[in-house]
Amino acid sequence: MHSDSLQFTAATSANGIVERDFTLGEVPGVLWSPVSGAERAPLVLMGHGGGGHKKHPAMTGRAQRLVTGCGCHVAVIDAPGHGDRPRTAYDEQEVAELRRAQAAGEPEGPIVVRYNARLAELAVPEWRAVLDALQQCPEIGAEGPVGYVGIGLGTAIGVPLVAVEPRIRAAVLVATWPDVLIEAARQITVPIEYDLQWDDERVPREAGLALFDAFASQEKTLHANAGKHLELPRFEADSAVRFFARHFGRAVPSPA
Amino acid sequence: MHSDSLQFTAATSANGIVERDFTLGEVPGVLWSPVSGAERAPLVLMGHGGGGHKKHPAMTGRAQRLVTGCGCHVAVIDAPGHGDRPRTAYDEQEVAELRRAQAAGEPEGPIVVRYNARLAELAVPEWRAVLDALQQCPEIGAEGPVGYVGIGLGTAIGVPLVAVEPRIRAAVLVATWPDVLIEAARQITVPIEYDLQWDDERVPREAGLALFDAFASQEKTLHANAGKHLELPRFEADSAVRFFARHFGRAVPSPA
Repeated sequence: MHSDSLQFTAATSANGIVERDFTLGEVPGVLWSPVSGAERAPLVLMGHGGGGHKKHPAMTGRAQRLVTGCGCHVAVIDAPGHGDRPRTAYDEQEVAELRRAQAAGEPEGPIVVRYNARLAELAVPEWRAVLDALQQCPEIGAEGPVGYVGIGLGTAIGVPLVAVEPRIRAAVLVATWPDVLIEAARQITVPIEYDLQWDDERVPREAGLALFDAFASQEKTLHANAGKHLELPRFEADSAVRFFARHFGRAVPSPA
Repeated sequence: MHSDSLQFTAATSANGIVERDFTLGEVPGVLWSPVSGAERAPLVLMGHGGGGHKKHPAMTGRAQRLVTGCGCHVAVIDAPGHGDRPRTAYDEQEVAELRRAQAAGEPEGPIVVRYNARLAELAVPEWRAVLDALQQCPEIGAEGPVGYVGIGLGTAIGVPLVAVEPRIRAAVLVATWPDVLIEAARQITVPIEYDLQWDDERVPREAGLALFDAFASQEKTLHANAGKHLELPRFEADSAVRFFARHFGRAVPSPA
């Protein structure tokens, strides 16, 4: 579907990190890399949350840690209907329906689940095409390990993506409504670090635990923290860096 | 009960760590400290597992990480009926009953729970007396933060200890049968890192999750890993070091 090659459209550099915007066909993305990158380095793909975009602070903060903390490349793309991408009439309708349900105090889960499932159908082939193109970059290459980080919608996309994409060898997933993800999770065998909020007021605890239970991975770790849906502790972003460093054989430098 | 003062009985030094055996009355213990210890440093108390002792590899390995990884002092004492301490007729009887149940394939939980509860009754005042005495050491002092690490029996002792001992400001607890610990856990408000094995063939998963749920701490983190009762991943020992470093304001040096 995207036979185009990656077009870099802008590049800046600060604090030892190179930020390059790119497009692949209609898909806009960003690639963060270490400034001093003669050697090839692993690549981590990240999926932003619902309503977010490729440079949401949750993405830039994690990217900064992954680039400086384990020398990885990090790529994020805008999900369909998000960021710099056009919203279709279907997107507008689902977002309006979600806002209406939230305002009325009605269950949002069924709307989020069906909308995210539709976005995942579109995004999985986009991600695979972006990965093909990124692996053409000499500083990434086709041999190195690839990781995935997903938050919310990024998990709804990530579970089916990791299930079908053998190049992804480890993933960090932040819990979301797991309803339609269980079957795909049962196909996943790579190491998983899975974050869940123990007092999540939106995603039921039992549902979150059921998704963790479903991963077929021999190495999987659940990090459940006290707190509500949006209160994931910042130290979990550091934990994700160590997780990839462990699986990709990278040293983690001491915090400053 | 132990108005005696701490008696150091042996000292050795290797790899930047001083190991000192001590006794307080009838209680034998060991204190590991950084060699270069002009400044006062935090103290971490550790409780060994059932059938273990103060220098079991699970204790020495964790102590080594805590001393070199965050510059703490680490103290372990033999639990009643364990290590260098005499076994009473009651100890012999309970251990024989446990071995018989295990050999017969009968539930071990009820025996472990009642025996550990009895040992905790004895051990909690011993620990408080040992802490009094350790805080007399100039390199520890009475002002610094105190942590606790418990494994199995060490958790059965640790939960009631942390519940009543305000000097303990953070604890890492590895799941055990939680049956009689729930009430004490509800009294605990300090930060907790709680490790549980997702495929534990001995402690039921729901029981382990119920103990995590019971802690009243505003900051608590569950680390649930795929694997059986005795397969706790070694990286959780490193996570415990970072947990104390975070709460005690210590820097964690880079791994060699």
